[in-house]
Amino acid sequence: MYRMTLLFFFLTLSARAQTAAVDTAAIKRILADQAVAWNRGDLQEFVRGYENSPSITFVGKQVERGYEQVLLRYMRNYGSPEKRGKLAFEELEVKMLGANHALVLGKYLLMRTDRGGGNASGRFTLVARKVGKAWKIIHDHTST
Amino acid sequence: MYRMTLLFFFLTLSARAQTAAVDTAAIKRILADQAVAWNRGDLQEFVRGYENSPSITFVGKQVERGYEQVLLRYMRNYGSPEKRGKLAFEELEVKMLGANHALVLGKYLLMRTDRGGGNASGRFTLVARKVGKAWKIIHDHTST
Repeated sequence: MYRMTLLFFFLTLSARAQTAAVDTAAIKRILADQAVAWNRGDLQEFVRGYENSPSITFVGKQVERGYEQVLLRYMRNYGSPEKRGKLAFEELEVKMLGANHALVLGKYLLMRTDRGGGNASGRFTLVARKVGKAWKIIHDHTST
Repeated sequence: MYRMTLLFFFLTLSARAQTAAVDTAAIKRILADQAVAWNRGDLQEFVRGYENSPSITFVGKQVERGYEQVLLRYMRNYGSPEKRGKLAFEELEVKMLGANHALVLGKYLLMRTDRGGGNASGRFTLVARKVGKAWKIIHDHTST
């Protein structure tokens, strides 16, 4: 009986670790897909990493609220190939917050010509939420 | 039977709303206590709003990891009454992320003399975690 309990305990632990690994991979995939979309100039696709909801928040210089506002902010600030440059994400860390939320830390790098505004980089904190099987960003705080 | 189910449904909803209200109040209380501690110059007490863990993270100009590093950062940057000035928090928003985590958005204001560095303000994103009945900050991203 004791052995069965122990076995069950380790199977549960192992199942949780596997779920967390799958979730972490899914979340990193969002960001990888975002970088690909950005680098081919598709901001509509880029913002699909965010939850399509009026309650999402983006803290930059100001606070933007809602999917549409977040999209408009990207279109306003990065509306030309020069301004978008080439985007890369680095130093990603994912911490699960319970089963359906995650905290994501990372760094962005923007390689741009002087005309586009020059190279830029900064750090971000994201909160992602699992809806069904899909992970979506519900909060973004990005600073340079 | 249908009425009982409906009653149970609303009681559950109401219990959840009450729990969320209690949690939100507890989290706002952390920040209120932090401001009081700061304004009497007690940084050791101020940082008690954070979880005493080596895994907490603070994203400012750099990333600090662990309670000790977070405390050291505050001591390094705000070691004198002039540098600390008077701290106030504004525009606090708390969003529950499941039962045991919360996202906190807000604004800080630092009223300081020119000698202390002048007035400063900025926005922060916190993630708080419930451990037993206590809420503690496990992540802080603050930008000016």
